Amino acid sequence: MPCSTLPIPTFPPPESESDESWVWNQIKAEAHRDAESEPALASYLYSTIISHPSLARSLSFHLANKLCSSTLLSTSLYDLFLNTLSTFPTVLSASVADLIAARHRDPACVGFSHCLLNFKGFLAVQTQRIAHVLWSQSRRPLALALHSRVADVLSVDIHPAARIGKGILLDHATGVVIGETAVIGNNVSILHHVTLGGTGKAGGDRHPKIGDGVLIGAGATILGNIRIGAGAKVGAGSVVLIDVPPRTTAVGNPARLIGGKEKPSVHEDVPGESMDHTSFISEWSDYII
Amino acid sequence: MPCSTLPIPTFPPPESESDESWVWNQIKAEAHRDAESEPALASYLYSTIISHPSLARSLSFHLANKLCSSTLLSTSLYDLFLNTLSTFPTVLSASVADLIAARHRDPACVGFSHCLLNFKGFLAVQTQRIAHVLWSQSRRPLALALHSRVADVLSVDIHPAARIGKGILLDHATGVVIGETAVIGNNVSILHHVTLGGTGKAGGDRHPKIGDGVLIGAGATILGNIRIGAGAKVGAGSVVLIDVPPRTTAVGNPARLIGGKEKPSVHEDVPGESMDHTSFISEWSDYII
Amino acid sequence: MPCSTLPIPTFPPPESESDESWVWNQIKAEAHRDAESEPALASYLYSTIISHPSLARSLSFHLANKLCSSTLLSTSLYDLFLNTLSTFPTVLSASVADLIAARHRDPACVGFSHCLLNFKGFLAVQTQRIAHVLWSQSRRPLALALHSRVADVLSVDIHPAARIGKGILLDHATGVVIGETAVIGNNVSILHHVTLGGTGKAGGDRHPKIGDGVLIGAGATILGNIRIGAGAKVGAGSVVLIDVPPRTTAVGNPARLIGGKEKPSVHEDVPGESMDHTSFISEWSDYII
Amino acid sequence: MPCSTLPIPTFPPPESESDESWVWNQIKAEAHRDAESEPALASYLYSTIISHPSLARSLSFHLANKLCSSTLLSTSLYDLFLNTLSTFPTVLSASVADLIAARHRDPACVGFSHCLLNFKGFLAVQTQRIAHVLWSQSRRPLALALHSRVADVLSVDIHPAARIGKGILLDHATGVVIGETAVIGNNVSILHHVTLGGTGKAGGDRHPKIGDGVLIGAGATILGNIRIGAGAKVGAGSVVLIDVPPRTTAVGNPARLIGGKEKPSVHEDVPGESMDHTSFISEWSDYII
Amino acid sequence: MPCSTLPIPTFPPPESESDESWVWNQIKAEAHRDAESEPALASYLYSTIISHPSLARSLSFHLANKLCSSTLLSTSLYDLFLNTLSTFPTVLSASVADLIAARHRDPACVGFSHCLLNFKGFLAVQTQRIAHVLWSQSRRPLALALHSRVADVLSVDIHPAARIGKGILLDHATGVVIGETAVIGNNVSILHHVTLGGTGKAGGDRHPKIGDGVLIGAGATILGNIRIGAGAKVGAGSVVLIDVPPRTTAVGNPARLIGGKEKPSVHEDVPGESMDHTSFISEWSDYII
Amino acid sequence: MPCSTLPIPTFPPPESESDESWVWNQIKAEAHRDAESEPALASYLYSTIISHPSLARSLSFHLANKLCSSTLLSTSLYDLFLNTLSTFPTVLSASVADLIAARHRDPACVGFSHCLLNFKGFLAVQTQRIAHVLWSQSRRPLALALHSRVADVLSVDIHPAARIGKGILLDHATGVVIGETAVIGNNVSILHHVTLGGTGKAGGDRHPKIGDGVLIGAGATILGNIRIGAGAKVGAGSVVLIDVPPRTTAVGNPARLIGGKEKPSVHEDVPGESMDHTSFISEWSDYII
Repeated sequence: MPCSTLPIPTFPPPESESDESWVWNQIKAEAHRDAESEPALASYLYSTIISHPSLARSLSFHLANKLCSSTLLSTSLYDLFLNTLSTFPTVLSASVADLIAARHRDPACVGFSHCLLNFKGFLAVQTQRIAHVLWSQSRRPLALALHSRVADVLSVDIHPAARIGKGILLDHATGVVIGETAVIGNNVSILHHVTLGGTGKAGGDRHPKIGDGVLIGAGATILGNIRIGAGAKVGAGSVVLIDVPPRTTAVGNPARLIGGKEKPSVHEDVPGESMDHTSFISEWSDYII
Repeated sequence: MPCSTLPIPTFPPPESESDESWVWNQIKAEAHRDAESEPALASYLYSTIISHPSLARSLSFHLANKLCSSTLLSTSLYDLFLNTLSTFPTVLSASVADLIAARHRDPACVGFSHCLLNFKGFLAVQTQRIAHVLWSQSRRPLALALHSRVADVLSVDIHPAARIGKGILLDHATGVVIGETAVIGNNVSILHHVTLGGTGKAGGDRHPKIGDGVLIGAGATILGNIRIGAGAKVGAGSVVLIDVPPRTTAVGNPARLIGGKEKPSVHEDVPGESMDHTSFISEWSDYII
Repeated sequence: MPCSTLPIPTFPPPESESDESWVWNQIKAEAHRDAESEPALASYLYSTIISHPSLARSLSFHLANKLCSSTLLSTSLYDLFLNTLSTFPTVLSASVADLIAARHRDPACVGFSHCLLNFKGFLAVQTQRIAHVLWSQSRRPLALALHSRVADVLSVDIHPAARIGKGILLDHATGVVIGETAVIGNNVSILHHVTLGGTGKAGGDRHPKIGDGVLIGAGATILGNIRIGAGAKVGAGSVVLIDVPPRTTAVGNPARLIGGKEKPSVHEDVPGESMDHTSFISEWSDYII
Repeated sequence: MPCSTLPIPTFPPPESESDESWVWNQIKAEAHRDAESEPALASYLYSTIISHPSLARSLSFHLANKLCSSTLLSTSLYDLFLNTLSTFPTVLSASVADLIAARHRDPACVGFSHCLLNFKGFLAVQTQRIAHVLWSQSRRPLALALHSRVADVLSVDIHPAARIGKGILLDHATGVVIGETAVIGNNVSILHHVTLGGTGKAGGDRHPKIGDGVLIGAGATILGNIRIGAGAKVGAGSVVLIDVPPRTTAVGNPARLIGGKEKPSVHEDVPGESMDHTSFISEWSDYII
Repeated sequence: MPCSTLPIPTFPPPESESDESWVWNQIKAEAHRDAESEPALASYLYSTIISHPSLARSLSFHLANKLCSSTLLSTSLYDLFLNTLSTFPTVLSASVADLIAARHRDPACVGFSHCLLNFKGFLAVQTQRIAHVLWSQSRRPLALALHSRVADVLSVDIHPAARIGKGILLDHATGVVIGETAVIGNNVSILHHVTLGGTGKAGGDRHPKIGDGVLIGAGATILGNIRIGAGAKVGAGSVVLIDVPPRTTAVGNPARLIGGKEKPSVHEDVPGESMDHTSFISEWSDYII
Repeated sequence: MPCSTLPIPTFPPPESESDESWVWNQIKAEAHRDAESEPALASYLYSTIISHPSLARSLSFHLANKLCSSTLLSTSLYDLFLNTLSTFPTVLSASVADLIAARHRDPACVGFSHCLLNFKGFLAVQTQRIAHVLWSQSRRPLALALHSRVADVLSVDIHPAARIGKGILLDHATGVVIGETAVIGNNVSILHHVTLGGTGKAGGDRHPKIGDGVLIGAGATILGNIRIGAGAKVGAGSVVLIDVPPRTTAVGNPARLIGGKEKPSVHEDVPGESMDHTSFISEWSDYII
């Protein structure tokens, strides 16, 4: 059966199994299937997945080899990543939630292993989670070095001090910039080229706060210590400078609320999960001359 | 004579010669000239171009060395690329058309070898062509691994299932995202940060269809299974959510047609070839307060 | 003391010391402090900074290791960079001004060494300065090869012919595109995803001219041979196709002047230095429905 | 079944099969077995053996990755090796004979794949065969570059002009030196640290000629254009400066014939195949005080 | 104080400390001293020693980076080495004994860190110890892959099945060959180019057995399942084919016992520890014409 | 003209030219010739030779790329080598003398560039010369790190404290070991596997002193603080434990003087230059039974 037509596995896993062990078993099964059908990729799949006894080791190995440089060796990074994942199990459980999020929300994601190996947004977020632990331990130069490697290698720039929830999907991810005091809730989906930026030169709390279940479209720029309420949606290419209430939709440059500032339309679904990018078009098209 | 002032060579080539052999001869001549004038680059030019007996080998070598990683070795990629180019000659003839397109349309392109070696858009498209062959052969995990390498190394994210014509110019190219069911015609020019994106979580045919000769300006976001008609133009930074008729111009966020929805202005030239980004300004400036 | 809470050192340096030696001493002091507190990073800090007798060698080493590839070796790049910096001292003094600019304008910049090692915008600009020297010496293929390496490795695409002043901050920097005939004054700050682009296929002088002290927000697209006057500000996500007068603010797509075309508001500060991204919101919000 | 206890496969192969395809099938079967039992090695076995469609490609890949350097890229070597093996099938058939020789003569050789992957003597001889082809084509600088890479990487120094038969075993191989005008027959076994050296500064035919079936013990030094007759044996540590008749044994420093110069003992077996290093001890022990 | 004139530290360590922790503290102290006095080496010393919390990690890191190849990645080797050292503490205690042996017996060894980082004999033996564990666990293909890497990288060829005691010094080490069924006791010193070889094609127990405290001089060749008695000495360049009694000296090609076969001279010291290579000269010189 | 048949250039160079510039011009001419005739090697020749403005830079580049490792970067080594060669011109003039020696004495040396690029003995000696400078400056840990890299990469082990003259040829070179207090005069030729070793555990002056013009044959072992007189010859495989008078020949294990201890034969030529390895055979053959 061609891999892209495999059914999405039933979720949640059987009660007897943790999410982590269930996802890791799926990943290994996918890797075995692909290694068998594609000899040219088998070496890659064995080294990145099949040879490892746990998701923590596989992820540490893969990130270390992606992010190493001639002056930051893969063995050192591997050690650092594995130690952090072993000591802080919530980091790995957030990774598992991210894998599940990608598999459920992105129709182009054909498997958990596809996400683990190939999604730069996924890899960037996991590295940020590790860097955030280091930042919290006052190991800031090391956290910033990881920040820099991800910005170079994956073109995703998330400050290690940012606080990020679980079940995050950074789709495509190139060009995402998330600033130092940004906060992102759970089950948020963010497309590529999105900026959660600051207001200028002054320090302090100066970046956006993104509620649970928010969807932010490609190229949206959100600036300043403002709130994007839970379940809100920000249209592609929008420039948002003021708060967006929960479950409303902001679009345009500058962004306006669909339905008007006073009585904005409120949607029922959770866009960060439904990934509905464009249902507002009919309403918005009133503005299209 | 400084290389950037060399005249653009007469095209098409003399009838006795194929485009491919003519372009390859130009590339080798440029590389010889540059190796002679710049010893610090000679080693690079010999290894990437002069030492190879054909464009297919030179391109395979260059891509393999750009895209390899510690877990995907250059020798394996070289083999894969060369085999694909040898078996599917239309891939290489499309590459040749792309080289000619870059040389003719981009005033900053000072030679075919410049494009072959340095243009990340060119290299990303050629890799996608190879990945598309693999995708069509149901070698999807391998196609997706190439997809991922290009997204990491070149920050260009083109799904291997997308169908792409000939004579394509991805100018600057950083941040371009092209989704799974997108279709792009011939002689299309696309600037950096352009998105041909989907509408959300549902699978199926969900990405834009771009006609022949279209020009899409920097940072434009085009979402959903909509049509950008042949010879249309999309202004920089536009957010396009509805069809754009042939030979019309859409600009703004949300995008509107120059001349109005009912009776849009129609231009004569083929913007994907003329690369005229800004002639609509006088008309559009009516909207500028 | 956690590194991020160190006070910004008094500037200018004592009169007895040049900016360069003062900044280099700061960098070494930071690196020593960080190497001591973080053994996992000490090797990196020794190889990139502490082992070098001068800023020129440290920068050449770091750039060479970042930008090298299997066909452009680090030793060759190191030699090229060091020779250029030794022969053209104004390049290094501009680098020093850029380091000071980043330290003073970016609240997330916790030290000079942080910028030197980690800021892709800083590293991209320094490489462009070197490539610009080569371009001016008619060593164009080599200049374009460096251009290409920076576009690949850092996702920053600055043509080597562009003319760039001192005290430049490219913040975050991913996706910045600056064309061949662009000119940028002193003390300019440019955020990520900014385009200073051309008008199309014709050669000649076709890119923007940016005055001293300008601030260009994230994702702004400025096209054509237009002037952004000294001290002007361009809002995030704006698409600018016409001149912007000095000390005025242009926002939106297409961009409009805050205060109106006829009598735009004029601000007193120098936004390229003050980094005030969002003070125009109250005025602009009139346009937000 | 532990791999080292696998029976040596019956040889010769069934008549319907060539030696090459039979050996290649054995190698793949061994690699599959080992990849299954040892996940930590699976990636290595897939990349070096299982992913390749032929012995020629597997050998070219493995040699290219072993012998490449920062200035001689693996892709270039792979291309060179594969082209040579494809054009000169006798090189590959000699390689097959060498694999069979190692498997049959060396009790520490637990499989054909063991020899292909791990025996530096085997890899050195195959590279010399390729370099010898290049030498014969007057591509001498390239042949000497390969010669140098093998001397560095494997510490085996065989001049590309030397003529070498089939069924050669260089056991352990470190330190073997074989000069420009040396000739080695078929089914010869040579231990480590053996020198087939010249007589000095004068050019011309100045190195030893080794007959079929000869065995040369560890550390033996054979100097000058002398003949070691077919089936002769040279004891470990011997220094041989004069001809050794067929099927006799020379030992000591300087080497003397077992049985005396006038009427040396003649043995029945072929020592290059029987690998009997020490049966002369009883006779020689007469000299041991 | 120049490093080479540092006094050899008092040994054994204070009773309160284990050998391992005492040696590891010495190593770190030496590395700190050298990093301070030699900035050009500080990065190397931090990455190989100072950044590690234990000797096991430092040794695993150093070996992994020495022995990795493009198809056997450093991260995989690091993991394998560290796991083995953690699970089998006797391996590490043997390594510590080897470090102490080198420091005490080799006047050119200026510190424990010198041996840990630079002595190829030390590094080869430690890898063999790890490979021997794998061999004993029937992970033979992996053990043989390590065997091969050491033979390539260090030119030391010790079969993973060989059994080797503690306090071993392989001085210089290039070219040492030790066969599958060889056994080496404790406190043995072996110079470079020494062979402990087999007798031929037959399998089974066919390599030498070396008693405790033996010294084997450079280039000695010892062949067959013979015994070199405890405290015996084998002169440089000797070819030994018969047993050598305890505390006697064998020299020459073929080797003879000093003092004669019937009543060999017996020495009092333990040559493997005293490293007295040449005291037999006066006796032997009787044979020198 | 095939390269190996090029006449040896007349030497000494014309009076108007220094040896160094004359040899460097020869090297560049050879490299140009070979790059032209062999495209597959052109990249290598440009990067190692043709792109460099001086022999010092070419040699520093080549050694740095050969000897670098993942923890000792090529750029750092390049800097170190170039600085040393620039500050101590006698090191480079000794290198030039070594190149001339190889070209004149070794019939297999087909050009100066052949020696510069490929002769591991040449490269090992030049690195030792640099390490010796560092040793003399009390930069011993760095000197020992270079020592170790050469021992690993080239299997040549020369202690940095050894004092070595000019015009040295280490032919083949694998396995050469030269101890800490050894001294080697000018115009000495040493074959592979030669040991100049110590007497044991005691420090102090304990290694051989080799006079001018000495030739030491393959595998000879010379132990202790003894003198090999000027113009003496040591036969292959000899074990020398006592002084050898000038212009005499020592052979055998243990070594005896040709002609007898009391009245040894004296030769007229300088064997280190004439490279006459075997002329003593007729005399020696008296000992061959």
